[in-house]
Amino acid sequence: MKRKIGNQNVLYPTPVTIVGALVNGKVNFLTVSHVGILNAGTPHLISFGMGKVHHTNIGIRENKTFSVNIPSQDSIVAVDYVGLVSGNKTDKSAVFETFFGELKTAPLIKSCPLSMECRLYDTYDLKTHDVFIGEVIATYADEAVLSDGKVDLAKVKPLLFDMSSMKYWSLGPAVGSCWSEGKQYKKP
Amino acid sequence: MKRKIGNQNVLYPTPVTIVGALVNGKVNFLTVSHVGILNAGTPHLISFGMGKVHHTNIGIRENKTFSVNIPSQDSIVAVDYVGLVSGNKTDKSAVFETFFGELKTAPLIKSCPLSMECRLYDTYDLKTHDVFIGEVIATYADEAVLSDGKVDLAKVKPLLFDMSSMKYWSLGPAVGSCWSEGKQYKKP
Repeated sequence: MKRKIGNQNVLYPTPVTIVGALVNGKVNFLTVSHVGILNAGTPHLISFGMGKVHHTNIGIRENKTFSVNIPSQDSIVAVDYVGLVSGNKTDKSAVFETFFGELKTAPLIKSCPLSMECRLYDTYDLKTHDVFIGEVIATYADEAVLSDGKVDLAKVKPLLFDMSSMKYWSLGPAVGSCWSEGKQYKKP
Repeated sequence: MKRKIGNQNVLYPTPVTIVGALVNGKVNFLTVSHVGILNAGTPHLISFGMGKVHHTNIGIRENKTFSVNIPSQDSIVAVDYVGLVSGNKTDKSAVFETFFGELKTAPLIKSCPLSMECRLYDTYDLKTHDVFIGEVIATYADEAVLSDGKVDLAKVKPLLFDMSSMKYWSLGPAVGSCWSEGKQYKKP
């Protein structure tokens, strides 16, 4: 039985990220899960829908760079914290240790197993949100989350976000291979 | 220890969707996982990065509507199949039973626990990809995946996509509450 549930967005779960930027020269962080992938190929373009009220947006507009960090579930308290308080009122610069890469103005988080430096490629401007479109310039991975040189999500232990339950979810086991399972398909 | 791994996009996993459209009056489906959420609020805007070669794109451009269906992991073979073969050569209209809602031209999949009817709000045009931005008009849920009237992801059993492993992953248990865990944070 189907039930109509309004015009709710049910495109979940999404990966939890921490977006980092320099705002007036100071490191700031924001938890962002309204993210997206625009294409497969070069340039690699990814999107971050961030309410215009956020302090971090100021730094992205100014420097035209930002970092995208994928935290593991072990960091859940700090991850949630940087989404609870605003850099406008609270200094969040010491919550995570950072390093800088090629772009010089995108603070990357040491304790996150995966991080990307992004150049601001474009902004899709909505009334309430800046949708920042980033071009991935350089990617950093902890050796500990690689298997045969490839990112192993089971080792990353990402957090996944869902608006309906307002919970963070964990990743379960892999259940099949893409562009492969379908070969077993038989017409009904 | 950090390793630089090129400029790889590591914004995974993403939810696996089946996008449905009418192409020249015939129902067609495509597996799409390069998706995104642009905002939180009305209108609810979600994005679908679809290579321009795909047959489904023709129908979306023509009708300015499409459906977004969230399959459960039980349908993995059919889900992968509609991503393996093109509607240009193979009739996929019988792979899933469909119904129509408010928009009349967005074929919704009966066997998917969640479906959204989308009106084409905008297209973000990339050289290789149409990034279709849909406004969610109406959402349908199986009664079986609701708990207290809300979508329960544990019951949905969504498939999650990862480009690095080229695997479909399952959802694990919830591990914490958003806008809550961070209250325990103590400065280092």
